[in-house]
Amino acid sequence: MNRITNLFNIKYPIVQAGMLWTSGWRLASAAANSGCLGLIGAASMYPDVLREHIQKCKKATDKPFGVNVPLLYPDIDVVMNIILEEGVKIVFVSAGNPKTWTPFLKERGITVVHVVASSKFAMKAQDAGVDAIVAEGFEAGGHNGREETTTLCLIPLVKKEIHVPLIAAGGIASGRSMLACMALGADGVQIGTRFAASEEASVHPNFKKKIIESNEGDTVLTLKKLVPVRIIKNAFYKKVQEAEDRGASREELNELLGRARAKHGMFEGDVEEGELEIGQVAAAVKQIQPVSEIVKEIIMEFHTAIKEVGNYGITE
Amino acid sequence: MNRITNLFNIKYPIVQAGMLWTSGWRLASAAANSGCLGLIGAASMYPDVLREHIQKCKKATDKPFGVNVPLLYPDIDVVMNIILEEGVKIVFVSAGNPKTWTPFLKERGITVVHVVASSKFAMKAQDAGVDAIVAEGFEAGGHNGREETTTLCLIPLVKKEIHVPLIAAGGIASGRSMLACMALGADGVQIGTRFAASEEASVHPNFKKKIIESNEGDTVLTLKKLVPVRIIKNAFYKKVQEAEDRGASREELNELLGRARAKHGMFEGDVEEGELEIGQVAAAVKQIQPVSEIVKEIIMEFHTAIKEVGNYGITE
Repeated sequence: MNRITNLFNIKYPIVQAGMLWTSGWRLASAAANSGCLGLIGAASMYPDVLREHIQKCKKATDKPFGVNVPLLYPDIDVVMNIILEEGVKIVFVSAGNPKTWTPFLKERGITVVHVVASSKFAMKAQDAGVDAIVAEGFEAGGHNGREETTTLCLIPLVKKEIHVPLIAAGGIASGRSMLACMALGADGVQIGTRFAASEEASVHPNFKKKIIESNEGDTVLTLKKLVPVRIIKNAFYKKVQEAEDRGASREELNELLGRARAKHGMFEGDVEEGELEIGQVAAAVKQIQPVSEIVKEIIMEFHTAIKEVGNYGITE
Repeated sequence: MNRITNLFNIKYPIVQAGMLWTSGWRLASAAANSGCLGLIGAASMYPDVLREHIQKCKKATDKPFGVNVPLLYPDIDVVMNIILEEGVKIVFVSAGNPKTWTPFLKERGITVVHVVASSKFAMKAQDAGVDAIVAEGFEAGGHNGREETTTLCLIPLVKKEIHVPLIAAGGIASGRSMLACMALGADGVQIGTRFAASEEASVHPNFKKKIIESNEGDTVLTLKKLVPVRIIKNAFYKKVQEAEDRGASREELNELLGRARAKHGMFEGDVEEGELEIGQVAAAVKQIQPVSEIVKEIIMEFHTAIKEVGNYGITE
C-alpha cells in the first residue's frame, strides 16, 4: 500500500499544490474528483474569501481536500479558525516554524503537512509532529529555499533523515517524473505548474497562455536579496535583473517589487509588468487541459514507465 | 538491450565524468575495469601529460575508455592529434560548437559524444552527427548552463527532441538517482562528484575530505557574469559573493578569479583560497571509496530500487 493514498484516503499519491491566485475551489475540487488531493491556496485570499472557497469546494466534491496556509499570512489566527469552523481535515503549512501551529492543529484532529526545502527543516517539521512532509526543489515555482537544492538531490537527502511519508515537489509534471521521484524514495508527489495550466485554475488566461508558451530558460530564481522566488522572465524581471546586476539594495528591490505585483500578473493578466510565479517545468507543459485529463495522462504515463523499468537490460 | 552499454561495449550504462584535476589514468582505468566507461579529463593536462595518461590507461585496462575534451582548450589541434595517434576510440566533447570537430572525429572512426545543458544544443549536436548526448543539469559541478535547468526538468525535454542515446548528468550519485534518470528517459548516466571522492581520483586529499564533509547548501552556482560554475562555498567564494552583491564588473570578477585557482584548490589542496568545482550531490557523498566499491553499491541499489517499483500499490 502507498503511504500517501492511505494518509489522505485518495486514489493517487498526487497532491495538487496550493498556489496563490491559482488554486481556488474549482481547481481543488477538480483535483479531488480526479483522485488527487486538492488544495485551496489561502495565501491570496482574504479570510472571508477563503471561507467561501471552502464552502464551495465542499459542495463540489465529496472527496478529501485541504487548505495550504503560508505562516507569513497576516491574519493567520483568523484563517486557522475558519479552517476549524468549516471542518477542513487537512492543512499544508509552509514558510514558517512548524512548532507554531502543528500541535494546535493535531490536537483538533487535523492532518498536518509541512512544506520544506531542506532536510534540516524536514527534521524540525517531523519533530513538531507533522503527518507528512513536502520537500520542494530549486525548480519549483514561487518562493523557494536559499540552498537551491534540486529535487533530484533533495529527495534522497530528506528521505535519509525522516520516517514520516515524503512528498516530492518541484519539476514534476508527468508520469515519468512522478516515477523518478518515487524511485528516489518519495511516497508521492506534489504538482503545481501543470495544474496552473489547467482549465480549472483561477489565474488569468493571459498567464496560462504564457505558461504553455514558455521554453527552457524562461523562468529564473530571482530576488535572492529578498525572498528567492521563481518567476517567468518578462519586462518586470528585466528591471529586477538590471537592478541586481548593479548591486541594488534590499530597499531598492522592495520598492521595485512594490505591492500586489503577483496579483497584477497572475490574476489580472498583465504578463509583462506582473510577477508570474511558476515552476521551471513550465517548459514541458504545452497545453491547457481539464484537470481530469491531466491526471489521466500522468497516471497512464506512470504505468507505461513502470513497465519499461523491467526491460532496461542491465545485469546485476 | 541498453543503447549505452551497446555503444561503448561496457557492462553498465555508467560514464565516469571527465573532470579537471580529477580524472587521470588511475580513475579512468579503475572505472573501465569496474564495468563503466572511464574518461580521462584533458582540460587540466598539457598535451604531453595527456599522452602519458592515455598510454598508462591502456596498460592498466583492456576495457574501453575515452577522453573528455573541452573545445575551449587552447591547443585543441594538438590534443586531437594525440587522441588519434594513441588510438583512443571514444571522445566526449564539451563547451563548444559540435560542428567543429564531430565530422573530423567521425571520419576517423571515433565515437563522439557531446555534453550539453539544453535541448537546443542537444539538437545541434545531433545534427552535427554525434553518437550520443550527455545532458547535464543545474546541480552538476564545474561549468554549467545559463538556463539553470535541473536534471529532472532537462532530461524529458532533451529526450523529446533527439533520437540518439541520451546520458543524464548532474545530481546522480546512487542507484536510485540512476533509476530516476532512466525513468525520465535517459539511456544511461554520467557520474562525476561521487568518483571525485574515490581513492583513484587524482585530486588532493584535502579536497576529497572537503567533498565528503560538505552538506546541503554548501555548493553554489556562481560567477554568472563570467562562465557559471558550481563550486564549494569557501573563503574564495565569500570574496566573490561580496563582489557580486555590490555589482562587481566582469573585469573585477576576472581579476578576483585570477589564474590557476582551480588547480590551487583541487590539485594543490588549498580548500579555502582555491576554486573547488563539485556537484550539489556532494552533500550525499559521505565516504572516500575505491571505484570498484562505488560501482558495486550503485548497481546493487539500482536493482533494489527496480524491485520496489512493482510494489508501489498504485492502481491504473
